[in-house]
Amino acid sequence: MKIAILGGTGDIGEGLALRLASDTPHRIAIGSRDAEKAENKAEEYTTELDSRGLDAAVTGGENAAVAADARVVVLAVPPYHVGDTVEAIAGSLAAGDVLVSPATGMKRDEDGFHYHKPGAGSVTRIVAEAAPEGVAVVGAFHNLAAARLANLDADLGIDTLVIGDDDDAKTTVTDIAEGIDGLRALDAGGLANAPEIESLTPLLINVAQNNDGMHDLGVQFK
Amino acid sequence: MKIAILGGTGDIGEGLALRLASDTPHRIAIGSRDAEKAENKAEEYTTELDSRGLDAAVTGGENAAVAADARVVVLAVPPYHVGDTVEAIAGSLAAGDVLVSPATGMKRDEDGFHYHKPGAGSVTRIVAEAAPEGVAVVGAFHNLAAARLANLDADLGIDTLVIGDDDDAKTTVTDIAEGIDGLRALDAGGLANAPEIESLTPLLINVAQNNDGMHDLGVQFK
Repeated sequence: MKIAILGGTGDIGEGLALRLASDTPHRIAIGSRDAEKAENKAEEYTTELDSRGLDAAVTGGENAAVAADARVVVLAVPPYHVGDTVEAIAGSLAAGDVLVSPATGMKRDEDGFHYHKPGAGSVTRIVAEAAPEGVAVVGAFHNLAAARLANLDADLGIDTLVIGDDDDAKTTVTDIAEGIDGLRALDAGGLANAPEIESLTPLLINVAQNNDGMHDLGVQFK
Repeated sequence: MKIAILGGTGDIGEGLALRLASDTPHRIAIGSRDAEKAENKAEEYTTELDSRGLDAAVTGGENAAVAADARVVVLAVPPYHVGDTVEAIAGSLAAGDVLVSPATGMKRDEDGFHYHKPGAGSVTRIVAEAAPEGVAVVGAFHNLAAARLANLDADLGIDTLVIGDDDDAKTTVTDIAEGIDGLRALDAGGLANAPEIESLTPLLINVAQNNDGMHDLGVQFK
């Protein structure tokens, strides 16, 4: 399966691209508004994978171009860009495609990080409202620390929560997520359950910042 | 140390009373608005502890009475009762006492459970606003499943998050929490970080309800 990771040049997108290319048979393309930037980063990821003996090429291109022939499109862009990004690639999406939303809104004050709940109810909901007819939206990968994901030497042993209102799309994303070594995908219900999942991301940062020796935290449900 | 658990006759209160009496050297008193109900439950808990060969008496009484000689008072009451409960026991609290808030507000719809954020910002904040001068407020025990806590045969192996603006009070509560076998207490910063912690409770329920074989979930940060 071809998976496009928009915003795949940085943050959580880099980690998802590397892990998916490393651990799964899927073909990974990363997207950016700047095609050259995406191509350069894709080359960098391919070199890193090659240095580990992994024969897994990551390709890169402009967002709409990489989305065009992907079945699953991950919106690894900042939360204030998700609506615009979906609109920009809408013409490249076909019925049956799946949009995956990992973003969360956060604000910071002197106490720490806090969930910045969008007016729509959640970032995942913004994606759902912008998605073209027939394109399912699934929330996943919200609570993964970018640096830990991007470091292929780091063990995961953590969970990711999957939400959505389309069972087939959820199954597709769950299977993709479970393909990453050490990542367990759990079903957290429908899209309406997004705010509590998005709220967990700032909490993970707060816990990491307040406890010696903890950093790039994930969570395991048990 | 004497610890009073108000609302200790049910839900999370029962589990905290049994675990603290079982695993720590603290003297545990449970409170209720109905003294007789608290006394009967205390006797029930003592019998259960005795049946396990544990010589740990739990006492019971009316909320204000058990709070009067306790250093730490846990408000294991429903979220819409925390403000009233603090007002009802205010005369029994002395400077240096610590109020512990484990409650969270939730509402339920067809998709699952959701965080019902109070106007004050969090349930923990309601407690802080109602607390008498000189009495510190600490948030803890928010994300523990009541039934699992109350079943002394169940292993924990999970974390609880501690928040507060008074470092001494936080240390006191952290030490108490760590006294429970299998429970790790992590520092999650100040009281302002309460909403994200309170939001985790409905998320745990949603995950448990959507995954076969998962129930009474807790969480481990790793």
